[in-house]
Amino acid sequence: MSMNKRVVEILDTTLRDGAQGEGVSFSVNDKLQVLDALVGFGIRYIEAGNPGSNPKDRAFFSQIAERKPEMGHSVLAAFGSTRRKDTKPEDDPGLADLLSAETRTVVVFGKVWDVEVHENLCCSLEENLAMIRESIAYLCARGREVIFDAEHYFEAAQDNPDYTEACLRAACEGGAVVLCLCDTNGAVMPEEVSRRTAAAVQAFPNVKIGIHCHNDSGVAVANSIAAVLAGADHVQGTFNGIGERCGNANLSTIIANLQLKYSITCVPDEYMTKLTPTARWMAEIANITLPNGEPFVGLSAFSHKAGMHVDGVKKNPDTFEHISPEAVGNNRRFLISEMSGRSAIMEMIQRIKPDIEKDAPEVGRVLEKLKEMEHQGYHFEGAEASQELLVCKELGLYKPFFSLEKMRISSEQPQVGEYSAHTYIKILVDGVTEVTAAEGEGPVNAMDRALKKAMEVFYPELIHVRLTDYKVRVLNAEATASQVRTLIESTDGHRVWHTVGVSTDILEASWQALVDSLEYKLMRKELGWEE
Amino acid sequence: MSMNKRVVEILDTTLRDGAQGEGVSFSVNDKLQVLDALVGFGIRYIEAGNPGSNPKDRAFFSQIAERKPEMGHSVLAAFGSTRRKDTKPEDDPGLADLLSAETRTVVVFGKVWDVEVHENLCCSLEENLAMIRESIAYLCARGREVIFDAEHYFEAAQDNPDYTEACLRAACEGGAVVLCLCDTNGAVMPEEVSRRTAAAVQAFPNVKIGIHCHNDSGVAVANSIAAVLAGADHVQGTFNGIGERCGNANLSTIIANLQLKYSITCVPDEYMTKLTPTARWMAEIANITLPNGEPFVGLSAFSHKAGMHVDGVKKNPDTFEHISPEAVGNNRRFLISEMSGRSAIMEMIQRIKPDIEKDAPEVGRVLEKLKEMEHQGYHFEGAEASQELLVCKELGLYKPFFSLEKMRISSEQPQVGEYSAHTYIKILVDGVTEVTAAEGEGPVNAMDRALKKAMEVFYPELIHVRLTDYKVRVLNAEATASQVRTLIESTDGHRVWHTVGVSTDILEASWQALVDSLEYKLMRKELGWEE
Repeated sequence: MSMNKRVVEILDTTLRDGAQGEGVSFSVNDKLQVLDALVGFGIRYIEAGNPGSNPKDRAFFSQIAERKPEMGHSVLAAFGSTRRKDTKPEDDPGLADLLSAETRTVVVFGKVWDVEVHENLCCSLEENLAMIRESIAYLCARGREVIFDAEHYFEAAQDNPDYTEACLRAACEGGAVVLCLCDTNGAVMPEEVSRRTAAAVQAFPNVKIGIHCHNDSGVAVANSIAAVLAGADHVQGTFNGIGERCGNANLSTIIANLQLKYSITCVPDEYMTKLTPTARWMAEIANITLPNGEPFVGLSAFSHKAGMHVDGVKKNPDTFEHISPEAVGNNRRFLISEMSGRSAIMEMIQRIKPDIEKDAPEVGRVLEKLKEMEHQGYHFEGAEASQELLVCKELGLYKPFFSLEKMRISSEQPQVGEYSAHTYIKILVDGVTEVTAAEGEGPVNAMDRALKKAMEVFYPELIHVRLTDYKVRVLNAEATASQVRTLIESTDGHRVWHTVGVSTDILEASWQALVDSLEYKLMRKELGWEE
Repeated sequence: MSMNKRVVEILDTTLRDGAQGEGVSFSVNDKLQVLDALVGFGIRYIEAGNPGSNPKDRAFFSQIAERKPEMGHSVLAAFGSTRRKDTKPEDDPGLADLLSAETRTVVVFGKVWDVEVHENLCCSLEENLAMIRESIAYLCARGREVIFDAEHYFEAAQDNPDYTEACLRAACEGGAVVLCLCDTNGAVMPEEVSRRTAAAVQAFPNVKIGIHCHNDSGVAVANSIAAVLAGADHVQGTFNGIGERCGNANLSTIIANLQLKYSITCVPDEYMTKLTPTARWMAEIANITLPNGEPFVGLSAFSHKAGMHVDGVKKNPDTFEHISPEAVGNNRRFLISEMSGRSAIMEMIQRIKPDIEKDAPEVGRVLEKLKEMEHQGYHFEGAEASQELLVCKELGLYKPFFSLEKMRISSEQPQVGEYSAHTYIKILVDGVTEVTAAEGEGPVNAMDRALKKAMEVFYPELIHVRLTDYKVRVLNAEATASQVRTLIESTDGHRVWHTVGVSTDILEASWQALVDSLEYKLMRKELGWEE
């Protein structure tokens, strides 16, 4: 890290503002995992909850205080509000909760919009100034570093700029080290953020100005960057942009832009290659699907589909990539589709059979087969193992490792006993049959267990293979007779691979992906790609 | 529409650039539906494909030429490139394809970056200028209105501004009416877009300047708006931001911002309430899941979860909403969760039982029950019918309409005959049993048919109920024994409702949602909410 580089502090509020996102709910264990992920990426401030608003957050802070986890470059922060009206700070339960979290830093939000002081707080403008000043002073006197979040800053500064400035001044008098301008509604546009941030930087030269944006207008990233360019030194957001309504400003995008395009340091430079794995892991913990098109970190962020782009990026990556995918720990991918030229397909075929000629008839056959399967609803994007299997079949490199003679899957409601489903299976390998059965939690699980049990008789190496993820996507909505695609992620402890199945029958689609998963493992061994 | 309002032309390229998105593939019928949706929303230009690049697009343009669909305010455009090097325009197959599309407008893209002229075209800088000028002139002479897309404009203008300007000048000399600056890589940031657009507007006062952005840096919307504020009068993008890598600039967000925040007309004012239904329908056709947090049009865009926000928005919507949801055809929603105060829950309970007291014991019971179900993995967000059923149960307003005695679902592989699955079912209604069975495409479909067949014996009104969508989401990834949530959409031809089920067994989860769907319909009748 160069000594001359400008530094911007990042505050991640995934655990507080992010937790208000629709469909997001963190257990205490999830929260600990988020904390570790953010510490591992070198995020400066981790806002971990509001101990005054819910018991789960209080429990989390006590756990942290007990465990004292490794914090690296990071600092934990608790979030709460200014004191109640007409209450002494020492009598305020919210401030007591904030102190009880025992964090070095606290974030205190307060009203700076006169409309809200009248309508929500129902107190005088003077009393609100005292609430801001006294709450912060009280916390500072007890050794806390205080960040002040000015709620609805932009509406406030528009309606009554003098009062809004008086609120910020009160926060400074109390001892706040950061005045964070919050676009609570996600309402403002970059030119206004830029103008008002520059004004605040000029008015308050002795503290840091921060920015906290929401994405209701689709410009939260641009607004955060506009604020930094106007002089803000502190940026709040959530790692994948999760949060209420349209979400908070997406820190993974902001950090990548500031660090790679403006040479402004948000995290240590050497951590930048962890951006993609961190974003994906954070999505896993939050149990959200990271959009494929997520800038920098999405699965498609460096995927090339149009034939022209594929050719272009091979000649000169600068022509279709704004940064190198490796810089953020992501990968370049060439997608196979009817729009691809032969070159993306050759790329894959040559990986499998390096000595093949460009105009060999197999290349055309693979292309035809892929087109036909895509037409049926297969997408091999994200299912590279099924794709390689298909190519190997067309190239004559392998034959199926077994054949299915008969399988019957049964489910019963109401459930009797431990399992609701069981599967009977009969397979044939080199003229030898194996008949077995398995129970499971639901029919897919029972089928998975039965197939694996039967196959292990012939291929004991499969014992190490296990499924790590199972996804279902309904392709065309025709109610319960829709076509579905299942994606399965498997591992043998060393490698991870993905397979796909498509059918109107969810069990048939799951079956295809399960079979591909086991056969892929066996094929790699047979072709000498692994031990 | 006021006479004084500034107007910006919108060009939607969903059918061309959008079709290059990962996982997107349009049939000819899909394309016709997209066209209708865009015409219905008053989009000025609909770029419908590249007749030179693939036969599907060619087929589509011939169909259009035959059918002559109602185009309203819209104009169809075909997309193609400048002529090949050292070829007369009249001998160029690409230009011939463009003309054969028989559209009033054509979009011609060309190289303006000297690096690409050398590396990709492998011709002289002079020849490229001739290619631009002559191709456009040839098309204009045949009655076409020509939009020139300057590929990699921003890299080009950075590296060799004089040559880039010469390229734009050649396009003007050829007769182009729009010079569109393309951020092909999604690389540039708003301040640069603003600066270079202003310069182009100044340099070429007699034509329109356009902007075409990609979202690789997460700022495509902000860049498009920055260009408009700098004088661009033409904006290209795709309706939900679909497109290669991280997608194109999202037109639904851009249009909402320009029209509602800057009073710039993109579509007739009275069409703005169609924004949300149009975006959702476009996502359906493209078979993509619209992110819940999509600005303006997403399911969560006006959803309030935090208790404080719920209270605030009820007192004064301006405090937590940047625009009125009705202005874009969306809805305000209050989500039920551990963070909600009692007020969101009261809102729902009072809808069902208007005379209930705020502190009635049933209110507390409903709250407890909802918390418990959420803890088990239920999310009632998006499943209002299951939520209402649950509340009605807790309020003692209804009892189940049947009980399940026994159900057995069987699936066989390899499939014999038309159906792979069948279900036997035995239900009990008022002491009377009904035993029946049904076949189906997969176990869920067979179960759906069997349940409906049995229930219709007792409740003939169910004959009009049918399922219109079925979604599966894997909640926690533990391979094939994961917990799954199913969401079902049903209709009786008048109303549409949504129900949810959660289980480790996909059949059990589907069963819960199916039962809720039928019972919801019956409950509404029983409570006198409908005939």
